[in-house]
Amino acid sequence: MSTVLCVLYDDPVDGYPPEYARDEIPRISSYPGGQTTPGPHAIDFVPGQLLGCVSGELGLRPFLEGMGHTFVVTSDKDGPDSTFERELTEAEVVISQPFWPAYLTAERIAKAENLQLVITAGIGSDHVNLQAAIERGLTVAEISYSNSISVSEHVVMMILALVRNYIPSYQWVVKGGWNIADCVSRSYDLEGMTVGTVGAGRIGLAVLRRLRAFDVPLRYTERHRLPDEVERELGLTFHESAAAMVPHCDVVTINVPLYPQTEHLFDEQLISTMKRGSYIVNTARGKICDKDTIARALQSGQLAGYAGDVWFPQPPPEEHPWRSMPHHGMTPHISGSSLAAQARYAAGTREILECWFENRPIRDEYLIVEAGRLAGSGAHSYSAGDATRGSEAAGR
Amino acid sequence: MSTVLCVLYDDPVDGYPPEYARDEIPRISSYPGGQTTPGPHAIDFVPGQLLGCVSGELGLRPFLEGMGHTFVVTSDKDGPDSTFERELTEAEVVISQPFWPAYLTAERIAKAENLQLVITAGIGSDHVNLQAAIERGLTVAEISYSNSISVSEHVVMMILALVRNYIPSYQWVVKGGWNIADCVSRSYDLEGMTVGTVGAGRIGLAVLRRLRAFDVPLRYTERHRLPDEVERELGLTFHESAAAMVPHCDVVTINVPLYPQTEHLFDEQLISTMKRGSYIVNTARGKICDKDTIARALQSGQLAGYAGDVWFPQPPPEEHPWRSMPHHGMTPHISGSSLAAQARYAAGTREILECWFENRPIRDEYLIVEAGRLAGSGAHSYSAGDATRGSEAAGR
Repeated sequence: MSTVLCVLYDDPVDGYPPEYARDEIPRISSYPGGQTTPGPHAIDFVPGQLLGCVSGELGLRPFLEGMGHTFVVTSDKDGPDSTFERELTEAEVVISQPFWPAYLTAERIAKAENLQLVITAGIGSDHVNLQAAIERGLTVAEISYSNSISVSEHVVMMILALVRNYIPSYQWVVKGGWNIADCVSRSYDLEGMTVGTVGAGRIGLAVLRRLRAFDVPLRYTERHRLPDEVERELGLTFHESAAAMVPHCDVVTINVPLYPQTEHLFDEQLISTMKRGSYIVNTARGKICDKDTIARALQSGQLAGYAGDVWFPQPPPEEHPWRSMPHHGMTPHISGSSLAAQARYAAGTREILECWFENRPIRDEYLIVEAGRLAGSGAHSYSAGDATRGSEAAGR
Repeated sequence: MSTVLCVLYDDPVDGYPPEYARDEIPRISSYPGGQTTPGPHAIDFVPGQLLGCVSGELGLRPFLEGMGHTFVVTSDKDGPDSTFERELTEAEVVISQPFWPAYLTAERIAKAENLQLVITAGIGSDHVNLQAAIERGLTVAEISYSNSISVSEHVVMMILALVRNYIPSYQWVVKGGWNIADCVSRSYDLEGMTVGTVGAGRIGLAVLRRLRAFDVPLRYTERHRLPDEVERELGLTFHESAAAMVPHCDVVTINVPLYPQTEHLFDEQLISTMKRGSYIVNTARGKICDKDTIARALQSGQLAGYAGDVWFPQPPPEEHPWRSMPHHGMTPHISGSSLAAQARYAAGTREILECWFENRPIRDEYLIVEAGRLAGSGAHSYSAGDATRGSEAAGR
């Protein structure tokens, strides 16, 4: 019998379960391109429930305890005295989410003597030192595509909100004013602006498809160039690198994984080559942008706006500059944790666990690391190495 | 020589001109379907400037004074002692914007003895008593299409923001928290939700086109049914009435003009037929929804969210319930007054004035009322009658 250690975010302030706004969520059975949504033998939750928090338990307790496994769920993930670090020595399986990442550094992997399987309930396994995971022979898997469309919607929403100056305008309503000129003096139409994406994988391509109808010239850079027919259909201009693309853009959206080559890609130098008054939306990973450079560029006007939902570390300290910099539209890391996405990544986690305990192969598209090498989606999207440095600063 | 009386919104709090976020706006020379953007002989402003406020003067002063006309610009529009009402007796031409409407009631039209031409610098002339305008033989014109795409972008932005719970999540960032569960317990994906539009004219159709790529079933009702090929292309389901459509929708967007038949269309009865937890986005006119019913439906949970940028009256008093009701994402009336839209409606106003003073016909698509009848766009979109009742409550 195994110990499954699961790190999830805290319950809502007003307790669990919350009062749900809606009675159901739409049923989605496959993703663009045909990959099917997760298909475990059974689920012990109602789609649309809040599953990603401690009391939600990803709906896994009846299933795991029914098989006799020990299931430990905690939100206490940071520091050497945390429940996570204490329980890690026993765990055969660790489950964590990008929204509340349990950083698996090399040191923690060394301590976790029984660890064999690491599951990201969501997408993006950069909180795991993949190099150390490869060397230890761990299996790392994530629920690919489970929230890609969710994130792509967040990106389009944030682009529109920055360009149109939504949140500051909302705030005039709440304050009791009607300051049209103050609202609109920073409000533009997206129509006609050039939008470029760094990365055109599942999320980036979904963003491009959604933006197509907005009559915006579209550009992209991606290490796996898209097929000709997709480029033609969407009217895409390809660039070899982010550096070659961003000077042509009014809006840049970042949709690549974090790995050593993308860490701090958006630094002072790259941002200085952008047009004055550009916008950046980054729902990929916080560390792809240099945080102080972003704040300075907003203050100077080099950037007109910055939005996204990814930070480093997570949770960011209260004094993190992105909480208070001007013209930002940040959210906590939520784009991939809508109630619809939660139903899919909870089901996907269960599917992976069923495979693991039944000795069946995990879907190739879910695999990041297996048998000492990058595998499946991991080989497509990641580079070996470590992007967890600095994670010790996480905390409220 | 004539008096041109122009009512515009106040300057920004920090003075005019503001510091512009960007150096230029995209050039748009025609709209979907081929109508060309406004083409006056010349303009005296730089596109991208703030033109719709008092100091912006729609860029018209050099042109009008150069011809010897008197040009009066004010934001003081409400009440019998307002500059607007005082100057109205002299004015041959009145220019006003939907964002800061100078209500032309029957009483005011009766007082305005010299009045011949009423221009809406924007779209939507319901602030004019069209019945009285018809009877007096006035010409009423608006800058059709000048900000239709702007509004359609606002609609898509607001739909995404309500469904994904954007603004409350942003507020957790600013407050210093990282309450993922609180953010996501009301956050859904738009994917798979049924979206219906009441009205599929220029704005409604642009909204449908933009939503198409989000993989949402689309429905519409419209008094002029769309061509078969458009219905097929966008996969639209047509309904004879809003009443027949809304029970099938998760999200309803309102994109019809205000005229007597659409006033208070969304009342207690209609909203009670919607699914629990539906969303409404109304960027058309505030009076199409009953304001107290909306607030109550948000409190009861019958509606999960309401957003839009139109109110009645405008400006709404500080105690207007839409400023403080739960789960709203309102802005002041700005969707059609982006800096890009301002460049177009300022140029369109100039085009109409050039035609008027040179005795050339005004473009048919700009005409709402002419020679004692609904004309041009007016005949297509409006009904005769009055939708200005209650406007005396406008004020800060």
